[in-house]
Amino acid sequence: MDNLSNAICTEVNQNGLPESLRRIELITSKKIQFYNTDLLDARGIAQIFRDHKISAVIHFAGLKAVGESMVKPLEYYENNVAGTINLLKVMREYNVKNLIFSSSATVYGLPQYLPIDENHPTGSTITNPYGRTKFVIERILEDLSNSEKDWCIVSLRYFNPIGAHESGEIGEDPQGIPNNLMPFISQVAVGRRPKLQVFGDDFKTKDGTGVRDYIHVIDLARGHVIALDKVFLNKWSGFKVFNLGNGCGLSVLEVIDAFEKANGVKVPYEIVARRPGDVDAMFADNRKALEVLGWKPHYSITDMCKHTWKWQSKNPRGYRSEDM
Amino acid sequence: MDNLSNAICTEVNQNGLPESLRRIELITSKKIQFYNTDLLDARGIAQIFRDHKISAVIHFAGLKAVGESMVKPLEYYENNVAGTINLLKVMREYNVKNLIFSSSATVYGLPQYLPIDENHPTGSTITNPYGRTKFVIERILEDLSNSEKDWCIVSLRYFNPIGAHESGEIGEDPQGIPNNLMPFISQVAVGRRPKLQVFGDDFKTKDGTGVRDYIHVIDLARGHVIALDKVFLNKWSGFKVFNLGNGCGLSVLEVIDAFEKANGVKVPYEIVARRPGDVDAMFADNRKALEVLGWKPHYSITDMCKHTWKWQSKNPRGYRSEDM
Repeated sequence: MDNLSNAICTEVNQNGLPESLRRIELITSKKIQFYNTDLLDARGIAQIFRDHKISAVIHFAGLKAVGESMVKPLEYYENNVAGTINLLKVMREYNVKNLIFSSSATVYGLPQYLPIDENHPTGSTITNPYGRTKFVIERILEDLSNSEKDWCIVSLRYFNPIGAHESGEIGEDPQGIPNNLMPFISQVAVGRRPKLQVFGDDFKTKDGTGVRDYIHVIDLARGHVIALDKVFLNKWSGFKVFNLGNGCGLSVLEVIDAFEKANGVKVPYEIVARRPGDVDAMFADNRKALEVLGWKPHYSITDMCKHTWKWQSKNPRGYRSEDM
Repeated sequence: MDNLSNAICTEVNQNGLPESLRRIELITSKKIQFYNTDLLDARGIAQIFRDHKISAVIHFAGLKAVGESMVKPLEYYENNVAGTINLLKVMREYNVKNLIFSSSATVYGLPQYLPIDENHPTGSTITNPYGRTKFVIERILEDLSNSEKDWCIVSLRYFNPIGAHESGEIGEDPQGIPNNLMPFISQVAVGRRPKLQVFGDDFKTKDGTGVRDYIHVIDLARGHVIALDKVFLNKWSGFKVFNLGNGCGLSVLEVIDAFEKANGVKVPYEIVARRPGDVDAMFADNRKALEVLGWKPHYSITDMCKHTWKWQSKNPRGYRSEDM
């Protein structure tokens, strides 16, 4: 289910599927049953639980734009926090107590040390409402699993997901000027924007530009599948958190360079002012995921750049058909 | 409005008023228009805003039992957090942007220094979901007032409210064994319970029992009135927090002694094991409220004990009539 609020193209085909899901059907050769339902609609959620025998939920739903969250915090808390509370209540009602949750490295706030492991403090130095919604949801999940011992909840803290499916059929399609580096790079490379803006070159890093931990979306997706397997096979219980990151930091200039080399294209850029709240460097200690989940990232930055470019060059206007 | 979920006696009189509100009408000689409405019922809240011209809201609603919150965290997050989000959305819809919020000293978690001022860290060491709901709501209020500059939100962080109205007509009437010291003392004094349990005498305090900052409920109530005056007269804006406490700590044994001396009654007690999570000492630096709000507590611990006893001895069974 999705409320499609993040989708730029909400047209559905004759089976009620938006374009992105139609492509997933193509790739997987599996039929998708899609519900256009909002987590704020508790009855709508309950209907899905009545229609199906569900053994676990992967909860990806949520508003996720940092800048927008500073303008519309109430909408972020409502959608993300109140929406999750609704979901949890329905899950409990239907006795579904296995949950994988999309969390974020933003819960760590300003890094006190690097690489960041799961014991790094969370909460107090988060700089935006989006990050706080993820932090609050983790507290709810933790309190819930402390009070009811039959829950098994895994929170996966994403670092910087980039890339696309290697078929080039599904990928990132942000609305407006991209907030994130990789879609900005690929929109410049494909000619949708004239120049990449690099926000600051006076960070305390190797080349002055911000350093982040980029992780391929397919590696990220596999992390969820592996977590789900662990939940079922190992009969886990309680609340567990894992960093999903590559474990190494790359600067903005390194990513631009990797993109140009991987794809043989030029990405013109200019250095502009830093954005408020951007930290020097942030990357994961991912050993817990490697050791406890048995997950390991497979894709290199070159793969991430190649797959992003395959998606972007095949779909210069994202999921929209050319005549829009 | 109230959903009466905390009320032991939910009978209403012919005007639809529960007993506690009927008594407030007696004391104030004012008619109260009461709505039996839940903050989770957004339509119900909106109806009240349609029926009246409202210029400010004092938001006292919320579940408030620490122990219960550890058993039913989802209900606490839903009632307190999701309920507040509903209220804020309706307030915004009806352009009501002045709010006084009932917060709690529990947002400070474990004291890092004493007395605790408003700059003390909040959040990370809170030991129960109840306290976390207050912390989360404060973050929502802060984010909201950062994003929309026409809000004026005052969060009042209560220390340990005790006492009763000096008429003895309204007071505290907890269900079951009281979680808090003063109602436990008064129920023992009035003969409803044989003996007070004192939880631990090996705290690092003057006499080994826990030290807290007790504040008379009428002083607390006056704090809200004064805050509201400030909001209207000074045209405040933004998010402001104030400690409401007496600014001094009293041990459990000191409170028992004060109660016995003030009222000429005996309060038999026994020392039992500490409760998990209880801290040694907690008391407020209340200078910000004194200086910025112009509020000052008027009542002494002797007053608090006298008024509690007047209420309890006049109403040995609380708001319930004798034949229940």
